[in-house]
Amino acid sequence: MTQVTVWNEFRHERQNDTVAAVYPDGIHSVIADALDEAGFETQTATLDEPEHGLTEAVLDDTDVLTWWGHAAHDEVRDEIVDRVCERVREGMGLIVLHSGHYSKPFTRLMGTSCSLKWREAAETERLWVLEPGHPIADGIDEHIEIDEAEMYGERFDIPAPDTLVFTSWFEGGEVFRSGCCYRRGNGRIFYFRPGHETYPIYHNESIQRVVANAVAWAAPDDGPTPTFGNAEPREDIDTSDERSVH
Amino acid sequence: MTQVTVWNEFRHERQNDTVAAVYPDGIHSVIADALDEAGFETQTATLDEPEHGLTEAVLDDTDVLTWWGHAAHDEVRDEIVDRVCERVREGMGLIVLHSGHYSKPFTRLMGTSCSLKWREAAETERLWVLEPGHPIADGIDEHIEIDEAEMYGERFDIPAPDTLVFTSWFEGGEVFRSGCCYRRGNGRIFYFRPGHETYPIYHNESIQRVVANAVAWAAPDDGPTPTFGNAEPREDIDTSDERSVH
Amino acid sequence: MTQVTVWNEFRHERQNDTVAAVYPDGIHSVIADALDEAGFETQTATLDEPEHGLTEAVLDDTDVLTWWGHAAHDEVRDEIVDRVCERVREGMGLIVLHSGHYSKPFTRLMGTSCSLKWREAAETERLWVLEPGHPIADGIDEHIEIDEAEMYGERFDIPAPDTLVFTSWFEGGEVFRSGCCYRRGNGRIFYFRPGHETYPIYHNESIQRVVANAVAWAAPDDGPTPTFGNAEPREDIDTSDERSVH
Amino acid sequence: MTQVTVWNEFRHERQNDTVAAVYPDGIHSVIADALDEAGFETQTATLDEPEHGLTEAVLDDTDVLTWWGHAAHDEVRDEIVDRVCERVREGMGLIVLHSGHYSKPFTRLMGTSCSLKWREAAETERLWVLEPGHPIADGIDEHIEIDEAEMYGERFDIPAPDTLVFTSWFEGGEVFRSGCCYRRGNGRIFYFRPGHETYPIYHNESIQRVVANAVAWAAPDDGPTPTFGNAEPREDIDTSDERSVH
Repeated sequence: MTQVTVWNEFRHERQNDTVAAVYPDGIHSVIADALDEAGFETQTATLDEPEHGLTEAVLDDTDVLTWWGHAAHDEVRDEIVDRVCERVREGMGLIVLHSGHYSKPFTRLMGTSCSLKWREAAETERLWVLEPGHPIADGIDEHIEIDEAEMYGERFDIPAPDTLVFTSWFEGGEVFRSGCCYRRGNGRIFYFRPGHETYPIYHNESIQRVVANAVAWAAPDDGPTPTFGNAEPREDIDTSDERSVH
Repeated sequence: MTQVTVWNEFRHERQNDTVAAVYPDGIHSVIADALDEAGFETQTATLDEPEHGLTEAVLDDTDVLTWWGHAAHDEVRDEIVDRVCERVREGMGLIVLHSGHYSKPFTRLMGTSCSLKWREAAETERLWVLEPGHPIADGIDEHIEIDEAEMYGERFDIPAPDTLVFTSWFEGGEVFRSGCCYRRGNGRIFYFRPGHETYPIYHNESIQRVVANAVAWAAPDDGPTPTFGNAEPREDIDTSDERSVH
Repeated sequence: MTQVTVWNEFRHERQNDTVAAVYPDGIHSVIADALDEAGFETQTATLDEPEHGLTEAVLDDTDVLTWWGHAAHDEVRDEIVDRVCERVREGMGLIVLHSGHYSKPFTRLMGTSCSLKWREAAETERLWVLEPGHPIADGIDEHIEIDEAEMYGERFDIPAPDTLVFTSWFEGGEVFRSGCCYRRGNGRIFYFRPGHETYPIYHNESIQRVVANAVAWAAPDDGPTPTFGNAEPREDIDTSDERSVH
Repeated sequence: MTQVTVWNEFRHERQNDTVAAVYPDGIHSVIADALDEAGFETQTATLDEPEHGLTEAVLDDTDVLTWWGHAAHDEVRDEIVDRVCERVREGMGLIVLHSGHYSKPFTRLMGTSCSLKWREAAETERLWVLEPGHPIADGIDEHIEIDEAEMYGERFDIPAPDTLVFTSWFEGGEVFRSGCCYRRGNGRIFYFRPGHETYPIYHNESIQRVVANAVAWAAPDDGPTPTFGNAEPREDIDTSDERSVH
């Protein structure tokens, strides 16, 4: 059974009444409940817990990690970021949500700024499925419509996705690559744009379905663990060369 | 006219007689001479110069930077790495050579470990052209043969290249993605495997041709500089929403 | 339960004693048995059956089709090829094996010649896993070694794969992209190189495992069926323009 | 000097007054004039000329072919389509414009239906640059705005582009991958969406600039011509195996 850890910064919900009204128990609890109902074994972790809730023991029990952060990216300690990135390289799935585009794990794994345009105007977003045959589009209509969304607009400074599943249309005139698949090391990463602290987007069933699909897609298989470093030849060759500075 | 800066760690050549015999004036001088002859305006820079030779002024005159390092990756100062990566994002081309796979700029821009298998046995390498229609294969035969090479073998822990131009065969039984194109920010990056301090590979004309082709391919155009951050709508929409934690 | 139809030209086995000794009941029966054991519901179909065994009824019961052909590609009737390609576009998975690279369904879906170099010398092939985190590499070691194989060599005239899972090394000096994933329409396609009529490659357990993994990967989900053609606007816009030649 | 042949169906302009008012000498003449001014050597060819104007002699003098067709795709003879596709595989560039998505050369080279949604409502299109560092975006702003355009909407049934340079926003609520790069054989293909017979889009300077950039990008280099078929080994191996059905 796939084990998911739902990570949340969990600050806005405790500090801002508008956010608290939408997510009284935190964004993580809504996502975790949805994943639980979808059949995953879920736990949650938040920034202000010891080690941000992401101890080695917790990660040992994590097949896929989902990440939501916004205002406190800088407070995530580098050693925990190293730990998360290392786990991804070993095969752990990572689902990065909305403002998590600026999180340390995502920017480090992408190697780019992950900058974008944004606007808070409660405008319409329409996510179009570009790859209807991809498992992350399972059970989804040709598009998902969100009445009130924060706008994210291109240029989104990311590496071109290995697979681009969704692209968003915004009422104010922009487009955005809103569902992006990557492989890094043995791990799979999905960036999914929707979700904002002041709009009830994670209560939307289609959005919950996409997140669940992404978790299923990102769950690790039992592929080979690569060996690195000095390697004996597979064929019978002369290895007597001594010109080396090692 | 495209301006190229050829960067070299330049330690082995000064410390090891075998290397000095192959590259008496440094690997950088052989590469720079070849690029000069190919019609580029070239300068060189090395680790032990102030700011590693990569001052803002030097980078202002650099369209494409080539990078060779091996034993002293850790001595490259982080602020210079930041500077190089920032320039790549702004459009500067970057050609990463051989053991530069472990350099700070490359690993940071890739977001992965860039680990691989290796072996020094002076064995045959044969680089096969996978994309004969790519500009980096201009003037190259179906394959390039190198009599004596260090082996690099898969798994090469990189993001899947945007375009894979060459794959190498090694006598000892391994394969390797040896010519890899990436876009990061506005910049283009090409990783090219051949080249080792104890073998005269950068004297090989086909290898020189590939490096020159790569420089031409990576030279920046005059595309748009993206604007990031809060953006006014392009369409006439209601922006009166006040639910914000910003 | 995923339903697989294993298609085979089934001529060599009936006409050539060497082949018959390796595959007495046909290549298809060995593949089908392996897939059956892996938990799939399997049936077989061959060229000389009515409609090549690929009636609409058979395809209605097919989630994934595997394809092996060699000497009689031209005898596959175009209307059956149309049918197969149409099913792929609707979501059916397609696993193309070895000499199937020249089959009508594959070349048509690729849009290229799918030409390559080849040699029959019973030489060693070593398939290296390039993407250890891909589901098709599940349960596979870092490489698969085949003692006696026909060589296929680059340039393989295909579109660059969406994901390249395996690359082969050959004793005679060539490399080959031997495990290639594509999406076409709603369907997923995997080309897998190993397997030859005179060598017992489909009896190899690792090869069987890859084929089974590929079938699992290619099995369709329930994504949206795109609608095409004239479309009403999603937003309230003026549609009174009458400048049309339709 | 790069030689371009601008192909046009050239029927609407002779049969429909609205179209004739926008393109009195045909869409091809406007495109050819723009390319001529951009420094290319141009000629034109149209459907109703002998061999559709695409004789072997004309193609011998063609580095890049641009293609506009709409109502008479079926009238393009298969032998001419074969000829064009063969030239692309040999290295000729192909720029497919707007309704050319349904042309025989494009659908055959893609291997998919190339279907899409469409609507003629003279609505706003805004093409956003996704890859500002790509040569086809040279000299272009962050977006191109077209006041009156035909809408094309996703799902666009194409293979995922090797590089996606533009994505369009439409006033009526759709998005579309409007600038798509492919490699097929030794040739480069660019699909560019804008341009419609009843709107003066090919008179737009930014659109002309993109077409010129695309021609420059698609012009062939002098890469290797692959050899296919039976191949001698590059290494000294035993080739005495006689188990063959060839």
